[in-house]
Amino acid sequence: MQFFDLDRTDVSKIKKALAGNDEHLKVVLEEYHASEIAILFESINQQDRQRIVNLLPVEIASEVISEMHEEAHPEELLLKLHPEKRAEIVEELDYDDATDIISQLEEHEQKEILSDLSEDDASNIRELLRYDEDSAGGLMNTQFIKVNVNLMKKDAIEEIIRQSEEIEEFYTVFVVDDHNIFRGIVSLKDIIKSKTNVKITELVRPDVVWVHTDTDQEEVARLISQYNITSIPVVDQDMHLLGRVTFDDVIDVLEDENTEDILKISGVSEDEELSGNWIDAVKSRLPWLVINLATAFLASAVVRFFEPTLAKIAVLSAYMTIIAGMGGNAATQALAVTVRRISLYDLTDQQSYRTVLKEFTVGLINGAATGLIVLVFALFFDSNPMLGLVIFLAMTGNLIIAGITGAGIPLLLKRVGIDPAIASSIIITTFTDVFGFFLLLGLASKLLL
Amino acid sequence: MQFFDLDRTDVSKIKKALAGNDEHLKVVLEEYHASEIAILFESINQQDRQRIVNLLPVEIASEVISEMHEEAHPEELLLKLHPEKRAEIVEELDYDDATDIISQLEEHEQKEILSDLSEDDASNIRELLRYDEDSAGGLMNTQFIKVNVNLMKKDAIEEIIRQSEEIEEFYTVFVVDDHNIFRGIVSLKDIIKSKTNVKITELVRPDVVWVHTDTDQEEVARLISQYNITSIPVVDQDMHLLGRVTFDDVIDVLEDENTEDILKISGVSEDEELSGNWIDAVKSRLPWLVINLATAFLASAVVRFFEPTLAKIAVLSAYMTIIAGMGGNAATQALAVTVRRISLYDLTDQQSYRTVLKEFTVGLINGAATGLIVLVFALFFDSNPMLGLVIFLAMTGNLIIAGITGAGIPLLLKRVGIDPAIASSIIITTFTDVFGFFLLLGLASKLLL
Repeated sequence: MQFFDLDRTDVSKIKKALAGNDEHLKVVLEEYHASEIAILFESINQQDRQRIVNLLPVEIASEVISEMHEEAHPEELLLKLHPEKRAEIVEELDYDDATDIISQLEEHEQKEILSDLSEDDASNIRELLRYDEDSAGGLMNTQFIKVNVNLMKKDAIEEIIRQSEEIEEFYTVFVVDDHNIFRGIVSLKDIIKSKTNVKITELVRPDVVWVHTDTDQEEVARLISQYNITSIPVVDQDMHLLGRVTFDDVIDVLEDENTEDILKISGVSEDEELSGNWIDAVKSRLPWLVINLATAFLASAVVRFFEPTLAKIAVLSAYMTIIAGMGGNAATQALAVTVRRISLYDLTDQQSYRTVLKEFTVGLINGAATGLIVLVFALFFDSNPMLGLVIFLAMTGNLIIAGITGAGIPLLLKRVGIDPAIASSIIITTFTDVFGFFLLLGLASKLLL
Repeated sequence: MQFFDLDRTDVSKIKKALAGNDEHLKVVLEEYHASEIAILFESINQQDRQRIVNLLPVEIASEVISEMHEEAHPEELLLKLHPEKRAEIVEELDYDDATDIISQLEEHEQKEILSDLSEDDASNIRELLRYDEDSAGGLMNTQFIKVNVNLMKKDAIEEIIRQSEEIEEFYTVFVVDDHNIFRGIVSLKDIIKSKTNVKITELVRPDVVWVHTDTDQEEVARLISQYNITSIPVVDQDMHLLGRVTFDDVIDVLEDENTEDILKISGVSEDEELSGNWIDAVKSRLPWLVINLATAFLASAVVRFFEPTLAKIAVLSAYMTIIAGMGGNAATQALAVTVRRISLYDLTDQQSYRTVLKEFTVGLINGAATGLIVLVFALFFDSNPMLGLVIFLAMTGNLIIAGITGAGIPLLLKRVGIDPAIASSIIITTFTDVFGFFLLLGLASKLLL
């Protein structure tokens, strides 16, 4: 009995075989699952990828290509292949996977690929290319099992077996009426368990969730995750059944959405490719840094305003970095917790209000606690109790601001319909920098001069 | 035909009904899916929750409780219920869900709940409680469909139907030999399609992935996501089949892991509850702020070292905040991209090296670009070309450091087996603060005095 090796590092065996002849490489490849070869593709060049795809049976080759990460650019690999081989592979792909890959290409390249396909396949893919890739229509697969609600058990089973010849995996049997209007789902289990002379209409479960082609992919993911279903039907405005989105697409969507969240909150454009080159990275990050620079000038204007004070008490510069640094980090903490909470739950107005109140309290306590440490430090090193008091007050005040803005700004953005993760650390730290300097230097001017 | 209402805000209807009598409330509740009631539970008090659970049929009540977010503390609700009602609900739960909830309780409370259950259920749950909750054993469900490899098709179908009486959903039929050794899977589709006189051994697919009870949940999630499977078998060291983990558990794991990543990278303890109270938040965040304070003292020591310079050129204070702020944000950008990349891909040594090189280049270019802006600003406002040059060099140098540490530190941590997300913005910004001040003030001392 052969099980797959769970140690992915073992693809080194293929890497070694790449140095040898095709015969040997082919034998080595047989030991691997398509998704493992897809992972290997991330670390080898385009020429080696082509060589491997050409050696693989077409079913495996198409699976490898559909398993490749978007960032490994399967569409570029596809373009390099011989048109005949390419058409074979695309015809083997599920329509939704083929569409995802082809949609990444220029229009003339898309046309070229589609022209080599059978009329049926080409028109199906052309149809799917019309949908927004972040919608249910863009995610859905148009191959699924459906039976007419009026069929008898025996005929339904025959129909399912007939349709399943073309569909590798199915999790749910969809039920439609004579006009392809969606009527519900039926489980294979219920069909088998039922008596012989039963009709599908008696077995169908109508109380299921469904989505429209333009439903956002995040909503699709939320529904599949909330209702623990393996696939969700996609219908048009008149309830005609058009396709299904399966749980594995949703896992990919969740990973993508989470990448976007973590990037946005850190001031990186959501569409920066993780493994992109430095040019992409500069394009994605420089605009945010320029925004940050503008906000930093704001903070430094506050510092300039108090230049006379700083000239007299130079040690304040040393405390400025502490107050600003602590405020920025406390704000980032409140921001991360709040953004994540918004993305997992729907908060009521009362819950939003309580969240801000909670972060106010957290800021007050954490500010007073760390302010006290700095106060003690100031007493020992600068022997100046009044300076200590100024720092204590500035720290407490700034961490309160950090809590209120870190929680309040993403909640406000959510309420006005803007993605809360856009309230990145860059935006939030502006408040703590400006307010922190203003508090520290303002109090110092009043109390120390 | 009735479909569920997709608009979750509509649970307000239940909220209104809570003001009325039980009869009316019961009728209103019938319109809702268990997972919708679970969401409602997040915004009502414990007393109302109990009232609703007591009104619901036991199958729905148990589903509601299993769908409740961990943070809504279903275990506390369970404790408050009448022991008889509670036992009914727990017996209706899947073993893995029951275990998840009960594991959150104190040992004497666990014993109390288990003592009311049937011997069979209690011992199954007790068995599952032994596994680490972040392992495959902790995630797995011990209820699944399995058939002996030697059965004939007809007997296998009968067996599957018999076992499926107790199991609401199954996606895969597992195959074992006479000693419960795992032999592979068989799809219901293949059984139905096969000829009448076929044996399971001819239909079984042995080439499947499996996990051990102690496999980490992240690895389980990765495998299910990589191989697009609805459930993965869990075996002991001798390959005895013990349970299965299903895709819906994995969706929850992914959400949890992503929450942990975003919290850790922002300097929040990974186990802070998103909807916890201020006491939890202070406990989770204050230690990180104290660490940050220690690193801030380090940065401020650099400032103190250059106090004579600052006393002479007070305007440097204003530029300090710009250099430090920009360095911190650029480092956070590089950190976010790298941490996310590590968590989605396995990077080879060469790829890691290239990542750091890429971030060096990005830092150089973004540093020079933003440094140039500040240089022009310094020329206009401070009429001091030499000061402009100092700032330009400090900005470029600090953004290079930001890139190298933001990418290099998480990669180093990964290599020595530490979670890379622990390289939070708090740790990374220490480098940019210290180095940024050192560069700015050091260069100023050399070139401006």
